[in-house]
Parts: sequence; C-alpha cells; structure tokens
Amino acid sequence: MAVFNRVTIVGLGLIGGSLGMAIKRRRLAKTVVGYSRKSATLRAASRRGAIDAGTTNLRAAVRDAEFIIVATPVDAIVPLARQAARWCRRGAILTDVGSAKSRVVHSLERSLPRHVSFVGAHPLAGSERRGIEAASKELFKGSICILTRTPRTNARALRAVARLWKPLVRQVVMMSPQRHDQLLATTSHLPHLLAYCVAGSTSRSSLRLAPRSFLDVTRIAKSDPDLWDDIFLSNRVEVIRAFDRFDRQWHMLRKLLAGSRRTELRRFLASAKTKRDTLDA
Amino acid sequence: MAVFNRVTIVGLGLIGGSLGMAIKRRRLAKTVVGYSRKSATLRAASRRGAIDAGTTNLRAAVRDAEFIIVATPVDAIVPLARQAARWCRRGAILTDVGSAKSRVVHSLERSLPRHVSFVGAHPLAGSERRGIEAASKELFKGSICILTRTPRTNARALRAVARLWKPLVRQVVMMSPQRHDQLLATTSHLPHLLAYCVAGSTSRSSLRLAPRSFLDVTRIAKSDPDLWDDIFLSNRVEVIRAFDRFDRQWHMLRKLLAGSRRTELRRFLASAKTKRDTLDA
Repeated sequence: MAVFNRVTIVGLGLIGGSLGMAIKRRRLAKTVVGYSRKSATLRAASRRGAIDAGTTNLRAAVRDAEFIIVATPVDAIVPLARQAARWCRRGAILTDVGSAKSRVVHSLERSLPRHVSFVGAHPLAGSERRGIEAASKELFKGSICILTRTPRTNARALRAVARLWKPLVRQVVMMSPQRHDQLLATTSHLPHLLAYCVAGSTSRSSLRLAPRSFLDVTRIAKSDPDLWDDIFLSNRVEVIRAFDRFDRQWHMLRKLLAGSRRTELRRFLASAKTKRDTLDA
Repeated sequence: MAVFNRVTIVGLGLIGGSLGMAIKRRRLAKTVVGYSRKSATLRAASRRGAIDAGTTNLRAAVRDAEFIIVATPVDAIVPLARQAARWCRRGAILTDVGSAKSRVVHSLERSLPRHVSFVGAHPLAGSERRGIEAASKELFKGSICILTRTPRTNARALRAVARLWKPLVRQVVMMSPQRHDQLLATTSHLPHLLAYCVAGSTSRSSLRLAPRSFLDVTRIAKSDPDLWDDIFLSNRVEVIRAFDRFDRQWHMLRKLLAGSRRTELRRFLASAKTKRDTLDA
C-alpha cells in the first residue's frame, strides 16, 4: 500500500530521476509528479518510468503534493524550496537531497512559512555521471541516507521523510546539519577535491601511462564541476577544516620521507591499511 | 615454440607467481624454475601452475638459467641479483619487476660481473592483495611494461627482455630509469601516499559512514605497507618532487576555496575532469 498520496520531485537529474524510479518501483506513492524547467527532461523521465506526470509549472507541480523533494544542485535548493513553499498546501513536507546541509537547513528553517515543514536529507549515493539518462532505480541500494535533525525540526515531518527513505537504502541515520557537513567534508568533499587535484596536476604525457591505481584514485574527478563547485563552496568552512587536518598528516608524511624515517613511515602506512581494511568486511 | 630454454623466477609473490603462470600459459619457456626461501611457497607455486620446478637453493635455481627474473620487494633486488650473478652462466640475462628503478639499475650496472647483463623492467600491474595465492595469469593483461634503457644497457639483453614481455602486456615502453621514476612518482607513488594519508587521517567514527567515493580513493591504502615503504623510500627524491608539485596546486585550491573564488575553482575542476575523461576512452 502506498505510504504517500502524491510526491513531487523538483529536479529530475541523476538523483531526482533515480528517486522517482525507486519510489515507483516500491509503490511508496500513489502518484509521483515531476517538475523540470525543460519539457525534454520531463519526457525522458516519463519514458524511464521515473514520474507519473510532469510539468514545467512549479505551482502546478507542488500545489496538491503532501511531500516535495527538491533534487537540484545545492545552490538552487533554497530559492526553489522558498518559491515552492508559497504554493504548498498546509502540512506539506519539503525535503532535499543535497550534499551540504548547514546553510540550506538553517536558511530554510528561518524563512519558510509555518504551514510547511522542511527536513534535510542526503542519500550517500551518486555517480560521476549525471542527468536523467544515468538514473537507476538501484542507485540507493545498500547506501546510507542521512537526515538532519535540529531543535526546530518537526517530528512528524522527520518520521515521514524517514518512512520514505527506509525502504530504499541500507540505513537511515539522523544527525545535526553541522555533524553531517563535518562528516561529508572528510569522507566525500576532501576526497573529491584530492581526486580533482591529482588529475589536474598531472601532465598529459604522464597520464598516458597511468596505472590502474591512478584511475581508481581519480575516478571521481570525472564528477560534474558545476555540481562540485557548489558543494565545496556551500560547505567551505568544513572543507577547509578537513583540508587542514589532512594537510598536517600529509606534511608529516613528507617529513618521514625526507628523513628516510622508515619505522615511523611503515607504522603510519600500516595503521592506515588497518583502518581501510575494516571497510570492506 | 618456446622463446627461452630455462627461465628462473626469484621470489614467488603476486608478481613472480603471476609471471610464472603467464609464461607457462604462453609457453614462452621450456622450463620455469622458481626460487623461494620457503618450501611452502614453492609447493603453492607448483600447485598453482606457476613453476615447473622449485628450489630453496639460489645457486641451484640460477646456475643453468639463461634468464633470471628477480621478483622480490624493491629492497631485496640488488643483494639477490648480486648473489645470483656469482652463479650465473656466461651470457645470462638478469631482470627485475621493481616499482622504483634508478637506484637498482645504477647499482647493478656498476656492480654485476661482466658475464651477465641486467635490464630493469616494471610491469604496471598489481593488486592490493599479495602472495602466490593472489597470483593470476591474467594480471598483466592490458597493462604496460616499462623497460629501462641506459648507455650501459646491453642491446641483446634489452631485446630479450622485450621479447618476454611483449606477449604478456598491451604495450612495452622503454625509457631511462630516471624518467621511469619521475613518471611513477606522479602516477603511482603519490596516489598511493595520498590514499594512505586519507585513510590514516580519517577518524573511525567517520569511516563507518564512508560513501563509495571514499572507498575508491582509498582502495590502494590496502596495499602492503612492507612493500610500499620500500617503494616510497627507494624513490624518495622523485616522490618528494611529485609531492611538492602536487602541493602547490593543492594549496592553490585551498586559496580558491577560502576566497570563494568560484570561477577559478570551477575552471580548475573542469580542466581536471577533461584530463581524467580522456583516460577511459
């Protein structure tokens, strides 16, 4: 039985499209409505089974929905959610899927009208590909979805957002937006920045002979720069903190190398390996 | 028809074992002899089809071979090759598979007796796993093998080593040991050091929620620290140079972030992506 009557997805890219496909497959909503600025995207989303109906009119898209998911790049979430909220019915729940949370959550908590609730969400799933054509109903399978909780979070809305995600992911985890941003700065944003930097600082003649290890480390440098400059800058303070924490260890490693301090170097490598080995178990 | 009569592999780990399996499968040698300090390793290598005969006696292993491949960790190559050379017959060719070349090649070119030739080789293939049990006859398939050439390199020996590798890899490339070490510092050693540093500097509580991007970037931190401290230190000068080149870009990125310089940040990310995109085509 459907959990929700009418769910609207605002933005039908990789995440929005995959979410529509997963919601429809699990029959979590009676109707999934899609909003996009482009009718070609709506047609592709229909064809791929991501939405039941689509519109390029935001007001029409959200007016009758009990549940609205904003699945746009980070920078567009706040303006679109504000606009949508003006037309939402009483009790409607707004949520998002953005990779940086503090700014979005705090800004919307302060500015949305009282008749709607916002809960931040972030499924830790993605791909270096983007767009509705890359969407997949399996995208979230086995992943973790983080929901943000603050003193202002509406408990009913939080439960509803958890009810949507639980069937789609391995685990739903709740934490403050700040904790989310610290965590993601370390486990996702910093690794992306490093991958971009490794790929960007390697000469083309060296790239030609790059081994598999290089390809692994830099795979996520294929991610869309237009999404990632948003993410890095939206979470700028935590990304810089993660950078500086990393950088202290990084320069300590340089010292160990420069001084040929084999025992300490090996100890560091062994401890890193031990940590990493726990992750695939 | 076999290209070589008797090939001896000194050290039967992941690379030595895989090489034995590949040579036997391609029938490149009439007999593949294996040397290991441990008879259990020799038994495993026989069982896995990596060698025709094995011995724990280095002299017996190399005495009748026309071709000896030292497939040990980098630090053991020079002492083992020197010892082996004392018992080699006239005209025997010694080669290796080490990941750092300048030190090994120069040291052996200066110290080996005149009746044997040494050619450095490095197949750009591997795995975070190690040992004969992880060996595979497919390990080198599609990869590149670098052979080192110096003014002292014996042309006949270089051709023979190329003849061995050509059927096993996608491409055999020749370059100076210095160029090899610069190249690998950038495309392999630095990425490994980064992966270790990312894994090592992330707290265990954050690791628990690490997304797939983190797993990709840190996969090679599962590599054996006992091999990698050798590689980093054998190629210390070039690794530090690669570190410093990377570090300039890395800190430039920090500045772009700290100053919210979106246009320049996006330009850097886009250029990195363009480079990386060429590699899977």
